Amino acid sequence: MKKTFSLLVIIGLILSAQAQHINGNYPGRTISFPDIPGYVTLKTDLHMHTVLSDGEVWPSIRVQEAVRDGLDAISITDHIEYQPHQNDIPHPDRNRSYKIASYSAKDEPLLIINGAEVTRNMPPGHANAIFLEDVNKLNVEDSVKAFKEAKKQGAFVFWNHPNWEAQYKDGVAKLDDLHKKLIRKDMIHGIEVVNDVTYSDEALQIALDYDLTIMGTSDIHGLIDWQYDVPSGGHRPITLVFAKEKSKESLREALFEKRTVVFYNNMLIGREDYLLPLIDRCLNPQEAKYLTTWAGETSVVRILIQNKSDASFILKSKSEFKFHDVGEIVVLDPNSITELKVKTIDVLEEFQLKFEVLTAVTAPNTHPEIELTFEVTKE
Amino acid sequence: MKKTFSLLVIIGLILSAQAQHINGNYPGRTISFPDIPGYVTLKTDLHMHTVLSDGEVWPSIRVQEAVRDGLDAISITDHIEYQPHQNDIPHPDRNRSYKIASYSAKDEPLLIINGAEVTRNMPPGHANAIFLEDVNKLNVEDSVKAFKEAKKQGAFVFWNHPNWEAQYKDGVAKLDDLHKKLIRKDMIHGIEVVNDVTYSDEALQIALDYDLTIMGTSDIHGLIDWQYDVPSGGHRPITLVFAKEKSKESLREALFEKRTVVFYNNMLIGREDYLLPLIDRCLNPQEAKYLTTWAGETSVVRILIQNKSDASFILKSKSEFKFHDVGEIVVLDPNSITELKVKTIDVLEEFQLKFEVLTAVTAPNTHPEIELTFEVTKE
Amino acid sequence: MKKTFSLLVIIGLILSAQAQHINGNYPGRTISFPDIPGYVTLKTDLHMHTVLSDGEVWPSIRVQEAVRDGLDAISITDHIEYQPHQNDIPHPDRNRSYKIASYSAKDEPLLIINGAEVTRNMPPGHANAIFLEDVNKLNVEDSVKAFKEAKKQGAFVFWNHPNWEAQYKDGVAKLDDLHKKLIRKDMIHGIEVVNDVTYSDEALQIALDYDLTIMGTSDIHGLIDWQYDVPSGGHRPITLVFAKEKSKESLREALFEKRTVVFYNNMLIGREDYLLPLIDRCLNPQEAKYLTTWAGETSVVRILIQNKSDASFILKSKSEFKFHDVGEIVVLDPNSITELKVKTIDVLEEFQLKFEVLTAVTAPNTHPEIELTFEVTKE
Amino acid sequence: MKKTFSLLVIIGLILSAQAQHINGNYPGRTISFPDIPGYVTLKTDLHMHTVLSDGEVWPSIRVQEAVRDGLDAISITDHIEYQPHQNDIPHPDRNRSYKIASYSAKDEPLLIINGAEVTRNMPPGHANAIFLEDVNKLNVEDSVKAFKEAKKQGAFVFWNHPNWEAQYKDGVAKLDDLHKKLIRKDMIHGIEVVNDVTYSDEALQIALDYDLTIMGTSDIHGLIDWQYDVPSGGHRPITLVFAKEKSKESLREALFEKRTVVFYNNMLIGREDYLLPLIDRCLNPQEAKYLTTWAGETSVVRILIQNKSDASFILKSKSEFKFHDVGEIVVLDPNSITELKVKTIDVLEEFQLKFEVLTAVTAPNTHPEIELTFEVTKE
Repeated sequence: MKKTFSLLVIIGLILSAQAQHINGNYPGRTISFPDIPGYVTLKTDLHMHTVLSDGEVWPSIRVQEAVRDGLDAISITDHIEYQPHQNDIPHPDRNRSYKIASYSAKDEPLLIINGAEVTRNMPPGHANAIFLEDVNKLNVEDSVKAFKEAKKQGAFVFWNHPNWEAQYKDGVAKLDDLHKKLIRKDMIHGIEVVNDVTYSDEALQIALDYDLTIMGTSDIHGLIDWQYDVPSGGHRPITLVFAKEKSKESLREALFEKRTVVFYNNMLIGREDYLLPLIDRCLNPQEAKYLTTWAGETSVVRILIQNKSDASFILKSKSEFKFHDVGEIVVLDPNSITELKVKTIDVLEEFQLKFEVLTAVTAPNTHPEIELTFEVTKE
Repeated sequence: MKKTFSLLVIIGLILSAQAQHINGNYPGRTISFPDIPGYVTLKTDLHMHTVLSDGEVWPSIRVQEAVRDGLDAISITDHIEYQPHQNDIPHPDRNRSYKIASYSAKDEPLLIINGAEVTRNMPPGHANAIFLEDVNKLNVEDSVKAFKEAKKQGAFVFWNHPNWEAQYKDGVAKLDDLHKKLIRKDMIHGIEVVNDVTYSDEALQIALDYDLTIMGTSDIHGLIDWQYDVPSGGHRPITLVFAKEKSKESLREALFEKRTVVFYNNMLIGREDYLLPLIDRCLNPQEAKYLTTWAGETSVVRILIQNKSDASFILKSKSEFKFHDVGEIVVLDPNSITELKVKTIDVLEEFQLKFEVLTAVTAPNTHPEIELTFEVTKE
Repeated sequence: MKKTFSLLVIIGLILSAQAQHINGNYPGRTISFPDIPGYVTLKTDLHMHTVLSDGEVWPSIRVQEAVRDGLDAISITDHIEYQPHQNDIPHPDRNRSYKIASYSAKDEPLLIINGAEVTRNMPPGHANAIFLEDVNKLNVEDSVKAFKEAKKQGAFVFWNHPNWEAQYKDGVAKLDDLHKKLIRKDMIHGIEVVNDVTYSDEALQIALDYDLTIMGTSDIHGLIDWQYDVPSGGHRPITLVFAKEKSKESLREALFEKRTVVFYNNMLIGREDYLLPLIDRCLNPQEAKYLTTWAGETSVVRILIQNKSDASFILKSKSEFKFHDVGEIVVLDPNSITELKVKTIDVLEEFQLKFEVLTAVTAPNTHPEIELTFEVTKE
Repeated sequence: MKKTFSLLVIIGLILSAQAQHINGNYPGRTISFPDIPGYVTLKTDLHMHTVLSDGEVWPSIRVQEAVRDGLDAISITDHIEYQPHQNDIPHPDRNRSYKIASYSAKDEPLLIINGAEVTRNMPPGHANAIFLEDVNKLNVEDSVKAFKEAKKQGAFVFWNHPNWEAQYKDGVAKLDDLHKKLIRKDMIHGIEVVNDVTYSDEALQIALDYDLTIMGTSDIHGLIDWQYDVPSGGHRPITLVFAKEKSKESLREALFEKRTVVFYNNMLIGREDYLLPLIDRCLNPQEAKYLTTWAGETSVVRILIQNKSDASFILKSKSEFKFHDVGEIVVLDPNSITELKVKTIDVLEEFQLKFEVLTAVTAPNTHPEIELTFEVTKE
């Protein structure tokens, strides 16, 4: 039994390198996802800190990190109330981070959103208000008044790290009456299902139960490169937002409309309405060709699946057909082409493969199913 | 929400490099698996070819490849009947590959098993007879007589690539009456569930139904390094054999007793009796420590799981507890330590985590479940 | 002509990984040089900036960068007079960078030296004063008075980037009368031969002519990791200081005594008194063994040279013997063992190899010569 | 002093990957050198062995290795007289290696040259005769008669490993009277200056003194990948032959005309007539742009030098100008673009840089000098 070794991995690497070169200047670093029908996919990180609250860098570094990561939009959300560097940086204008970052980004294809973190004890805990006009007006004693002001300014507000073990010692996200009230009054619109290096199934369930936008952010205080070991291939959590165009207004509209998918490690977390089209665009069925041996044609078909994204997909086969080279678990590496062989029993002109996408999540322990259609090439 | 980045990946790499150094001279290449209680784990490849049939190398290269891969035993199983190089290498003594390889391996910790491939049309197709005394006596016209002679010599015989699309054009392994007869008469003892770059669910089912030893081999004709892209981290398929000691006799006994697990890509395929102890020894629960924040102690516990093998494990959580940092899918990279955070709700002294091991297979689409026990460290 | 391939590169990599593990927590990143007889080798970067002048990070990041690089001492030398963030960070106490960094480093094996950059037009341009007691007292209008105050406080003062093309448009370091006066009055003790990504032959000549300490610094404003592409193996320029012990006082004494070597890219720049012992400790002649072939013993000897440093050495042979495997140019990779074969014509018990070290510099276009002694191992 | 980090290394890597993709299917492996004016640069390895003498592989592996390395021509030169596998491979036709390799290469862009190694005691030792019509006719007792037959067939003949320590125990190549006679009678045309992992200054001197073609070969017996650690970036020694076109006849003519340069590790060894044009085509001066700072225009010019080859060049500056960022030693990595800054004192429209190429050799310890011309870009 003698076969030829496939060069697909190598070709995949080259395609990947080329793709990355086209997309930006930082090959191997730029986070890359395709657009979906009707929307552009904006890569965003809407929760981060600088020396203007308790972070360790000037806003210009946040801009450069985002440019290197290929993000489309960020919001520097320094704490309004928590100011540990106050003696050195008195900083009466809470819009300063935004202003400095905007100046740093003036020649970059990066949207800077004015935002801030309302930083309170639980309840309601911490929440980010973004698309603010004037952060200073939220700097008031009563926390509900801060939320009211955010609403007045038309801000998009999301509950931060509802699973924070410093506030809920069991790490379990749960709604207090105050949260419910704020949601009811349209003063909280989203919830962080992913914050930094944490993921919360319970937060995801709250998002679904209360119709909130699913959010994932880095909440970075130090350096992105160190926190996520970027040189070894790590990346920060981001929220993919499906917007009508790349503009602040479209981004805002998309967030209110809950058109998001969170990318965290290799997980993709979101509503099926956006997760399925995204996966569909990430995974591209290519060539399908029946094998021929010295003994004649076979009914084993060699297929190629291209993964045009930075996510590594772990799939579980739900097809009627078995594979000739793997069991039911299939891994599709990021930005590469995977070869598989399928036993279709009969020689077909077209066939479908079904998979449960284990690394995608639409609800706690719930994974979407996809179907890939292959058209057989004849020689 | 501020956390410290863990250095565990780095430490893992160092541990891995050191482990590999101790095990052999080829860091990053030596395939490494732990022993299991009562048995040593022998890494074997019992199907391969040289210029003495239709391969492309002298037996000495097969020995060096095996030494570089850290194997414990190989058998060069050149085709008895198929001799395309016959004009250049008349080769009347079919034991020559064995003799040359034995000489090449005389200073190496590598067992060389005398074997050959009985190479017939289907049925019965191809079969390897190993632990032969004299291959030449199998060079007879009638195929059943060859099997009889193998039995007479006490050989262990396994059916090769029963899924070969050149013999079964649908790639589906299936037993003919002749195979059933040979099995019944104790003349076939094993079956290749993995051959080269193929895996067969149907062959696994046959192994289970007919009580055959589960085998996986490279069937290499060219170079191991090229066929499995070893420089990029690939490896040949091997059969892990659980033997009482590292000796030819123990290896033979273990094969007849069906004490095998096949390692192919990241799949581990075998009977639960051996697969579970193997996984148990591969995965080592280390430290478990409850997190403390500025707000006091929490019920979120940080755990470390060491993977002491070359297999990358994909696990699906079956525990009552949820993770603080991942969903239900957990990936444990080879030779590394993975950190996870678990929400145990109450602060416990000891707890168990249960996982379905998706990359391990005991029957078609059937994955074993493991339980890892963590003892909590107190400061 | 058949030979066996050497595994030394592999072994070198392992030794290197192990060495790095022992030296620190950041394998592949910690900069590593041996001590020399009578002195410990302190790795220092004594010129850097933070948000407290025109840098982009909080002092805590400078501490963490230094820890990751395995440095022994740093000085944050924010500009006294140049304060572009003044509106946000009024910062009346110019010792703040030092105080914050000291607090950040309180649990680290890192010495923090109080320092500042006197930032004036040319002449005298910029100069760093380190080991200050109170930076504020240098914040005076007359530049010479600042130097006087530094001297009064016992500071070590060095002229920064004398080759700066913004001050000397031809990039050529040259002394003005004022510089000469300051040197004469013992108010300038050192000169940057390396600043960031520049090297100046003319500055080196000035150091030699005027008996100044040879300095090399990063002058970092942004991030070390990005500026020197650390993930790809780059490193910041550092000054190796040969001190009696690892203490602030010893470091200060060593700087005044001009016991320095600058490490910049692969260049080592310094006075022969310290450069020769350093290279001597970096390069370790190991095994020397005459080759034996099937035809008997030869007078070709296989030698191993270990490079126990992070510098890659380019050597030019000055020996009477020729090599059997290379020409006169020999490259010794960092932290590795290089095998060479030497034709000694006669079989010797001991022999010397002489090299000009092209990557080491004691004066413009002047490279030191070393002699390595090999004792022949007999079996 | 603040500067921006250059992205050139990254761009270089991408250019390199793309170049390699265009040249062949094995990125990172294909050995790549430019053509020179009037000639195509053929990459050849004209000394290698298979199981048909004392090698360890079938000729098909030699073909595949060469294809992976991107070679243009090989000759399998099995020993005529030394046949250790004779019992297994009686092999009366000494043209068999050639015939098998030709068949293996029938669909590859690889020229297979019929050749053989005349294998005698010293003198004359071993010699390769290539472009033979019938190897068998050289299988005669008297060694001089073998050379005569080679000449009769029009073969190109070169002396193998004249530095072989099994034949000259001091490893020093030296001519015996017989060699001189064979050269005089036009029966030896070339000499191996590089064989496998050895280089011989004395052999180079002989080539120059006796007007012989400078040759470098692998003399591979085992596997190229292992012997030269190809996965880590190593490569076999090759002879670059400057031919009028890619054909056997042109290759033969070019060898007789001594149009060769040997590439071994990072050394390029050859006559200046071919070495200088080759280096000239390898090193491509790109952009030259004077730096501007906030203080106005400077006379420091930023230049880019592209290295379009697989050789790493170590250069020693011989220019009147000094560099702003390095000393006199400059390293140009393979397939990449290096940025340098030059202090031209005056602002020029065009300037030259001169270098001694330390890694190129035209005679023992003699390195060629090159001049690169840069035209300054104005904005």
